[in-house]
Amino acid sequence: MQKVVIDLGPRSYPILIGTGILQDAVVIREAVTARDVLIVTNVTVGPLYLEQLTGALDGKRVRSTVLPDGERHKTLDVVARIFDALVAGHMNRDACVVALGGGVVGDMAGFAAACYQRGVDYVQVPTTLLAQVDSSVGGKTGVNHPGGKNLIGAFHQPRAVISDTGTLATLPPRELRAGLAEVIKYGLIADAGFLDWIDANLEAILRLDATALTHAIRRSCEIKAAIVAEDEREHGRRALLNLGHTFGHAIETATGYGHWLHGEAVGVGMLLAADVSRRIGWLGAGDVARLRGLLQRAGLPANAPAIGASRALELMRMDKKVLEGRIRLVLLQKTGEGVVRSDYPVDALEATLREHFGSAA
Amino acid sequence: MQKVVIDLGPRSYPILIGTGILQDAVVIREAVTARDVLIVTNVTVGPLYLEQLTGALDGKRVRSTVLPDGERHKTLDVVARIFDALVAGHMNRDACVVALGGGVVGDMAGFAAACYQRGVDYVQVPTTLLAQVDSSVGGKTGVNHPGGKNLIGAFHQPRAVISDTGTLATLPPRELRAGLAEVIKYGLIADAGFLDWIDANLEAILRLDATALTHAIRRSCEIKAAIVAEDEREHGRRALLNLGHTFGHAIETATGYGHWLHGEAVGVGMLLAADVSRRIGWLGAGDVARLRGLLQRAGLPANAPAIGASRALELMRMDKKVLEGRIRLVLLQKTGEGVVRSDYPVDALEATLREHFGSAA
Repeated sequence: MQKVVIDLGPRSYPILIGTGILQDAVVIREAVTARDVLIVTNVTVGPLYLEQLTGALDGKRVRSTVLPDGERHKTLDVVARIFDALVAGHMNRDACVVALGGGVVGDMAGFAAACYQRGVDYVQVPTTLLAQVDSSVGGKTGVNHPGGKNLIGAFHQPRAVISDTGTLATLPPRELRAGLAEVIKYGLIADAGFLDWIDANLEAILRLDATALTHAIRRSCEIKAAIVAEDEREHGRRALLNLGHTFGHAIETATGYGHWLHGEAVGVGMLLAADVSRRIGWLGAGDVARLRGLLQRAGLPANAPAIGASRALELMRMDKKVLEGRIRLVLLQKTGEGVVRSDYPVDALEATLREHFGSAA
Repeated sequence: MQKVVIDLGPRSYPILIGTGILQDAVVIREAVTARDVLIVTNVTVGPLYLEQLTGALDGKRVRSTVLPDGERHKTLDVVARIFDALVAGHMNRDACVVALGGGVVGDMAGFAAACYQRGVDYVQVPTTLLAQVDSSVGGKTGVNHPGGKNLIGAFHQPRAVISDTGTLATLPPRELRAGLAEVIKYGLIADAGFLDWIDANLEAILRLDATALTHAIRRSCEIKAAIVAEDEREHGRRALLNLGHTFGHAIETATGYGHWLHGEAVGVGMLLAADVSRRIGWLGAGDVARLRGLLQRAGLPANAPAIGASRALELMRMDKKVLEGRIRLVLLQKTGEGVVRSDYPVDALEATLREHFGSAA
């Protein structure tokens, strides 16, 4: 088992990473110290792991709420069901909410914990690679509104995160690959050495080698933590974590949500950001080709859909990262060094968009 | 105009107290710096003051949401309507939510501001005496759940509070008096000199003398701020603010919510706390008689309803302030010096309950 401590002063917490730790009573009980526990999970993950987790909490007063699965259920109405369960279980301020599932479950359970009695403890047990490398650091919780994603939420840090790499065996392979796009992202923006390691260990990760997975998750969390620590409330440097996201959101929107997984769209988006960086003269053609190769070996799409450059630009402008009319982009000054910029040559962006999205209307 | 600065480091904010300042564009625009503003009010207060406040914000992009009036509407569903208005108005992170109304409006608008995009600015314009002396300090926001009051919420400090004493002219006199109970509370728990001042100025407050009201609000906010500053997240000393509340909740519950106003029940509750303190030997009979006289002059009830001592004790035990089976009480070591204690002689409490609630079943 590996441990990463997220240093946030009085709100510091450990991320524990290992295989089979979800059913290790010693590990679980060190993370969940409360006597009253509400486990929040969903109809997909619950049948797989709820019994194991409940077993590890034997002796405590444990209740569970099983939510529907899927991003479209990440709503205030569904969070209200978590509040109902907390009230029905007579949970007080000493209670602990445990999120067992992917990012959607974590976001909702964390938001409920943030608001119940103005804040109770919360422990994450992420069961997807994306949640293990992304949602477990940063303290963001919340739900969607018909008007936009994650519009309602709170910053609420967990007491602990328990990432059991064993749960990835039941994750659909396509979702594992989408999570891997985010792992590659951490290497690109902050650690060229980690990108080299990914390059050398990609196949081991894909066949769920426990040692490789543990290192990939650990290093991803460390990089995200270092970035977030400098910028807990998201103003400057934290935007680096959005590498590929502005392009990716355009792809997701143009193709209709659900056709591309978020990680898949971000993967192609990173390739486009790399391409803009190459046109500016920051990256070499070899750097971009290597990234394309990594995405392909990871089984991720490496080509953008033909939505047309002008449509893509329009969608990118609607993204909230636009500053004074200029689209703020995360670019790569070199591999392992991301920068947030609005003052790049617009030509470079337009050329990338034309080449990758096509010039058709 | 008077100004109290609530010192919370980077989250410090001013409370501005004066007459007619609600329509003073200079004051309002210094508090509300955002360009996009959502005013949240209710069907009672909106028709009285919304136009004036909107006028003072002339030139900004101002929208408003008018909620139903009353504690029973303080729900997550009604807060969802504030989110809808924020989204419909394309409000972003730079927007400001302005709460125009009493405590219910403030609690809901503040909670919506806490959660919208994980936190936007929020300015309070309290229009009741209770909200001016209570809700404007402490950062508590939230809504009720069918299972209990204020079970869902957040700590979210306002950017500024604008307390216009002129709005008290349209407040039902009974609500003014209920708010006065809280003003008396501040004197009792923390400032004997302020209690002397209230004693000397009670009639001026009741006839809405602007100078007297301004001082009463100012000093109340200062006292609450000093207590909250030591204990922002409510563990120890902040419990002093609950003087009279455990008794008061028993009265409210036994008589059915709505028959007694909260401030009325707290007023009698303070008298009972004073009576327990007298039996312990901390207060003299004269101190208790003086408090009774103050309540009577304020037009507040000075006698508890005959619900029976055993029923009262049972209800008090259900209150969340019970610690290890003993009812934690706020008592008065002397006038102007509240203490939170669980180790008082139980006889004293029981004698007070019998005398005031009657011994009938």
